[in-house]
Amino acid sequence: MASERALDLNADLGESFGQWTLGDDDAMLRLVTSANVACGFHAGDPSTLRRATAGAARSGVAVGAQVSYPDLGGFGRRFVDVEPAALTDDVLYQLGALEAMCRVAGDRVRYVKPHGALYNATRTHEAQAAAVVEAVRAYDPSLPVLGLPGSALLAAAESAGLRAVPEFFVDRGYTSEGALVPRREPGALLDDADEATRRLIRMVDEGVVRSVDGTDVTVRAESACVHGDSPGAVAMAQAVRDGLGAAGIRLSAFV
Amino acid sequence: MASERALDLNADLGESFGQWTLGDDDAMLRLVTSANVACGFHAGDPSTLRRATAGAARSGVAVGAQVSYPDLGGFGRRFVDVEPAALTDDVLYQLGALEAMCRVAGDRVRYVKPHGALYNATRTHEAQAAAVVEAVRAYDPSLPVLGLPGSALLAAAESAGLRAVPEFFVDRGYTSEGALVPRREPGALLDDADEATRRLIRMVDEGVVRSVDGTDVTVRAESACVHGDSPGAVAMAQAVRDGLGAAGIRLSAFV
Amino acid sequence: MASERALDLNADLGESFGQWTLGDDDAMLRLVTSANVACGFHAGDPSTLRRATAGAARSGVAVGAQVSYPDLGGFGRRFVDVEPAALTDDVLYQLGALEAMCRVAGDRVRYVKPHGALYNATRTHEAQAAAVVEAVRAYDPSLPVLGLPGSALLAAAESAGLRAVPEFFVDRGYTSEGALVPRREPGALLDDADEATRRLIRMVDEGVVRSVDGTDVTVRAESACVHGDSPGAVAMAQAVRDGLGAAGIRLSAFV
Amino acid sequence: MASERALDLNADLGESFGQWTLGDDDAMLRLVTSANVACGFHAGDPSTLRRATAGAARSGVAVGAQVSYPDLGGFGRRFVDVEPAALTDDVLYQLGALEAMCRVAGDRVRYVKPHGALYNATRTHEAQAAAVVEAVRAYDPSLPVLGLPGSALLAAAESAGLRAVPEFFVDRGYTSEGALVPRREPGALLDDADEATRRLIRMVDEGVVRSVDGTDVTVRAESACVHGDSPGAVAMAQAVRDGLGAAGIRLSAFV
Repeated sequence: MASERALDLNADLGESFGQWTLGDDDAMLRLVTSANVACGFHAGDPSTLRRATAGAARSGVAVGAQVSYPDLGGFGRRFVDVEPAALTDDVLYQLGALEAMCRVAGDRVRYVKPHGALYNATRTHEAQAAAVVEAVRAYDPSLPVLGLPGSALLAAAESAGLRAVPEFFVDRGYTSEGALVPRREPGALLDDADEATRRLIRMVDEGVVRSVDGTDVTVRAESACVHGDSPGAVAMAQAVRDGLGAAGIRLSAFV
Repeated sequence: MASERALDLNADLGESFGQWTLGDDDAMLRLVTSANVACGFHAGDPSTLRRATAGAARSGVAVGAQVSYPDLGGFGRRFVDVEPAALTDDVLYQLGALEAMCRVAGDRVRYVKPHGALYNATRTHEAQAAAVVEAVRAYDPSLPVLGLPGSALLAAAESAGLRAVPEFFVDRGYTSEGALVPRREPGALLDDADEATRRLIRMVDEGVVRSVDGTDVTVRAESACVHGDSPGAVAMAQAVRDGLGAAGIRLSAFV
Repeated sequence: MASERALDLNADLGESFGQWTLGDDDAMLRLVTSANVACGFHAGDPSTLRRATAGAARSGVAVGAQVSYPDLGGFGRRFVDVEPAALTDDVLYQLGALEAMCRVAGDRVRYVKPHGALYNATRTHEAQAAAVVEAVRAYDPSLPVLGLPGSALLAAAESAGLRAVPEFFVDRGYTSEGALVPRREPGALLDDADEATRRLIRMVDEGVVRSVDGTDVTVRAESACVHGDSPGAVAMAQAVRDGLGAAGIRLSAFV
Repeated sequence: MASERALDLNADLGESFGQWTLGDDDAMLRLVTSANVACGFHAGDPSTLRRATAGAARSGVAVGAQVSYPDLGGFGRRFVDVEPAALTDDVLYQLGALEAMCRVAGDRVRYVKPHGALYNATRTHEAQAAAVVEAVRAYDPSLPVLGLPGSALLAAAESAGLRAVPEFFVDRGYTSEGALVPRREPGALLDDADEATRRLIRMVDEGVVRSVDGTDVTVRAESACVHGDSPGAVAMAQAVRDGLGAAGIRLSAFV
């Protein structure tokens, strides 16, 4: 075979908090190649982070810092108009906290991916995108940033000389412009694991995805995001993993 | 005299939070050789930590992680019965967060000193003392632990193969057993900077301190702690620094 | 039989937080007569409290304020050495916050029950027990306090002229002194709903419970606590409710 | 002139937190007629709230609930995109918590005023304005809402049948449209207490204020806001109070 086809599979982990459990980290660690681990600002108490990073290290899963606005009550899903300089410091704080957990597991943080509303905001909010990137650059310019293709975040990462890694959402609908269908509109979510897997394989092979409007749009991604906390999350991830394997696509962390 | 006499002077810094300011970090950074920087659990938002660590790096002041119970409302001054395993993770989280700030300032965390109620508890609470030490050991066994002579904390540090650094309190009264006079008892606090300085110089030269009972007790310390947040903190630190200089005692970080 | 036998059944509710769900409040509201609703310090964001209190009002379930130490990360299960005056203010704050939720549901807070480590501490910690009671007395001296028979809390409540309501734990083992078997010892927990129900009925009828040592000890209680957040919580509560009904014991809130 | 002229003077109080002090509440309570007391979401631990409300009750100062986004680190000065339903619940929680403190001081909450970014947002954000108003209406429709003339907040309050009380900013510049000059533009702040007082008296007498452009604009307000936490806050408030008294304008709470 001429070129080997490979893909990274990422999911959010470490999103429990104290007495409250969210997602099945152990199951997901057997399925993904990269784990976006919460850093305590939207989820993830220190012991949760430690378990998630230790599990990732044992499983050979790459750990990314899933940095967030400080918003435990809103799970980081609410835009917060943080001043860019403060946002940079918030990201540094989270990066370092997670790094300590990786370090005692014999590993290190391998990449950064903003969470929730910060992820959404940094698609277009250039000052916040630059603030996140500045934290990564100052901390370790060899760390890639994972984000939405075409986002202000990835543009800022590239401008700063960082590696910008575009990702694809396995279970989200795409518009004919290549954007995600907003969650409240029809076609926003794919429930069918087979369909999602076929769509993902086509993205890998052809670099296109069928939009909700029925047209094909170009989407290039190095990583595919599966959700970690929904009821069918583990089953979907398992189906996607199996489907990729059957199609001869090797799963491998992008870092 | 053959041997040079040297001493470290440490104080708490980085204890502002958001809109609220505490202490005069800039002034103290000109006077001390080691800064116990808050890590966000009892005080210190990320931007405060960044400013404090950047200032310390510029001033050549060694940064220690002033780790605490999670208790912003109580400023870390209330005992919290944290399970040892969770306490270890809390300390790791704080260590890493502060490390990131030091790192972007071109420096690193040089030592660990528990704050407030955790400092008091680990004088005698062996499980919590061991939990703090375990975090340091797992993170970086070359980091010294700063604490009270005779404390469970320093004993645990030594048992774990860490360097245990005893400290002396410049403005606190000592009992004839070498313990600190409790804050509510007479003689707990020294207001007179001259007297405090004379007492400190004697500790350096002779290894003894006059107790509140009038007897001399042996106290060996490598570092002297001055308070950073009281109204007369800067004046006291300045007087102590000047007095030590006049006595030919060189100020130098213990790390 | 001349006198009707009645009992209150209480459980903890409103212990979700933001994205994290704990327990099945709707199911429990159909089974209990009193709901100890979290107040935001150990669990319970404002929207969770509002849903729980609105549900209780609709179901005719009495709402009690389940006040706690400020300890979201530890779910209020860790002793915090809060100064009594500050503890009184913490309890007032929580009482008022929950009262607002009851008020917009057309109801009001009917009683107070400390949560977790505060519940345990106020068995013997007289200053903290008095601090909790002082908050209730200052806020509304007609509010009963629910607690462990023989606790410092109930003694303080009585001294302050408040109604002290002793409770029985449906699924906890008792020592021959009438105390709860510590959670880590054998016999601490009853898993068998039938046995628990028989034991509870005997407590109602005879005022005694068979201890883990096999002796009968006197336990008088006006309310029985069932757990709300364990996996089998709903099934246990349902079985107990059914068993009491079959025994002709009427379920009725103690307030 | 036959009719007596009266004005309310309001300021933010209760904005300390734990170890951190902000403003001089005791001094301000001798000068203002209404106190916007923080409720714990941007500032104000329970003990701070209790002291502030007790002081207000003793001084005959009306207490308003200064409700905020949950943002201790940002002092409530950052917009948070809270869902309206959650915002209503957040406001209810804060209202009730402060009410408990007023209640044990023999008083009650008399009005509601949003703080910081929530104040700014509800000038134009109709959904958040309606959410705040809905909380007040559900809690107690007799409570007035204090806000900026022309704001979505006051419009929503009037639509809901609440009393909408417009306020004037004693030390802020006004544009020719009657809006506040943004803080970063020239003329945003008045430092001169005499000038501020003259301007305030003219507003009371003529209902106009000279804008930064030199034109007179109509501004009608029932309350004048003085800042409580800036270095010269107490001196400014004292000068304004004295100036109003000399001009025969009686100070009186609007409730």
